[in-house]
Amino acid sequence: MTAAVPARVVRIRSSGRAEADDLVVAEAPLEIRLGNVPIAVLMRTPGHDADLVLGFALTEGIVLRPAEVAEVRPLPDPEGNRWELVPAPGLSIDPEQFRRNLYTTSSCGVCGKASIDAVRVAAPPPPPGPVLDPETIRALPAAMRAGQQAFDATGGLHAATVFDPAGELLVLREDVGRHNAVDKAVGALARDGWPPGESMLMVSGRVSFEIVQKAAVAGIPVVCGVSAASSLAVELAGELGLTVIGFLRGDSFNVYSGAGRIA
Amino acid sequence: MTAAVPARVVRIRSSGRAEADDLVVAEAPLEIRLGNVPIAVLMRTPGHDADLVLGFALTEGIVLRPAEVAEVRPLPDPEGNRWELVPAPGLSIDPEQFRRNLYTTSSCGVCGKASIDAVRVAAPPPPPGPVLDPETIRALPAAMRAGQQAFDATGGLHAATVFDPAGELLVLREDVGRHNAVDKAVGALARDGWPPGESMLMVSGRVSFEIVQKAAVAGIPVVCGVSAASSLAVELAGELGLTVIGFLRGDSFNVYSGAGRIA
Repeated sequence: MTAAVPARVVRIRSSGRAEADDLVVAEAPLEIRLGNVPIAVLMRTPGHDADLVLGFALTEGIVLRPAEVAEVRPLPDPEGNRWELVPAPGLSIDPEQFRRNLYTTSSCGVCGKASIDAVRVAAPPPPPGPVLDPETIRALPAAMRAGQQAFDATGGLHAATVFDPAGELLVLREDVGRHNAVDKAVGALARDGWPPGESMLMVSGRVSFEIVQKAAVAGIPVVCGVSAASSLAVELAGELGLTVIGFLRGDSFNVYSGAGRIA
Repeated sequence: MTAAVPARVVRIRSSGRAEADDLVVAEAPLEIRLGNVPIAVLMRTPGHDADLVLGFALTEGIVLRPAEVAEVRPLPDPEGNRWELVPAPGLSIDPEQFRRNLYTTSSCGVCGKASIDAVRVAAPPPPPGPVLDPETIRALPAAMRAGQQAFDATGGLHAATVFDPAGELLVLREDVGRHNAVDKAVGALARDGWPPGESMLMVSGRVSFEIVQKAAVAGIPVVCGVSAASSLAVELAGELGLTVIGFLRGDSFNVYSGAGRIA
């Protein structure tokens, strides 16, 4: 089972801080090819990849039934992140019809490193600060929750907030999509000056690669989540010098990267 | 605030069932155009759309800074779901570089109806059954939770499961991405016969449009979620004759569509 990978974490409780070994959920890009043409890159947890490719092909309407697939097979790739969908003999599918957003066309292949490099090119160097009081960080979930009006009504929305280093809420946005909530918050901030500088992005859910990517490109140096952080999110943050905080709830939180910003 | 829209719901408790007015989180497609070329369709909660378009352009690297955007403006569209990103004078951006998955190229425009019609074309008619005992439904979350090995290790994974009408678990898959978990489960089932027929998809999170879309295309007639259902998910299920169950936790659940399948 490669779904969990080891990580070092700094656990911060009201009683103090301690370094520990932890497990984070594995995340890596998977490229799906039709013939020689990449049609999709999915950020996924490795494992059951053949199921993923076949299921994706079916539920996205690339094929109408399993019989239209001759084979789902791994392509030569050191990390096992590249798969080919082989249509049944005589069936022709136009790949152009299904091409999805690709993170990278780097010739080094689809790997965490290529994904990280693609973000590195687009992201400004993060500010060295802020240096944050743990008390300030502990107060963020309640401040976010207080502003979630639409969540109150429906129980169904993700929230993204940006705070200043003192824990003052700069913007809160809600959306059914977690990435959309982040984009709305970043877009709102962008009207008032760019980049936002020493600030913190806090999300109501998980901290995945794409959330850290969006923070990095927006120049926001600290990303906090109520829930878990993924392996590739932590790796990206480490490479770019961002701070990633997970399981920020109750009186405690875990720092997966950039603990130097915590006083 | 259009983030919550009214819906009729059948609330099923151990004490009985009752119809009620409820609010579900609004979800609708938003198309982003660069000049005349659509570059992305996002499923989002309406509201702060200009923020979303600007933030998306920034965090996805379509522009490097707000100054590269002359204007973000709504295009003529009865539902307000089509926006244009106008680059600053003298700046040229190749839209082909950023084209993302489009649900539909229907000339009727980007609206819930077009999205639903696109799924209708790809989806087989769902089976009329199964007819489900509420007790069977109440037991699903515990059965799913029992199988979530990777979640136990990391606290960071979505799960998707498919059950037969008696509540027997057919397949469980976990992934950092909620759509991936569904695709893995569907792909696994596809190896054993297609379509899966009278079965239930249960997810660990929300029931959004894309989750119902994937179930519909796979011919799975019942979709259950631990958390909320979105407006467009409920609408799609209603149009196609699928059952949507939300807030399935503890002793109760809400039926947003297709309550005829509950005994």
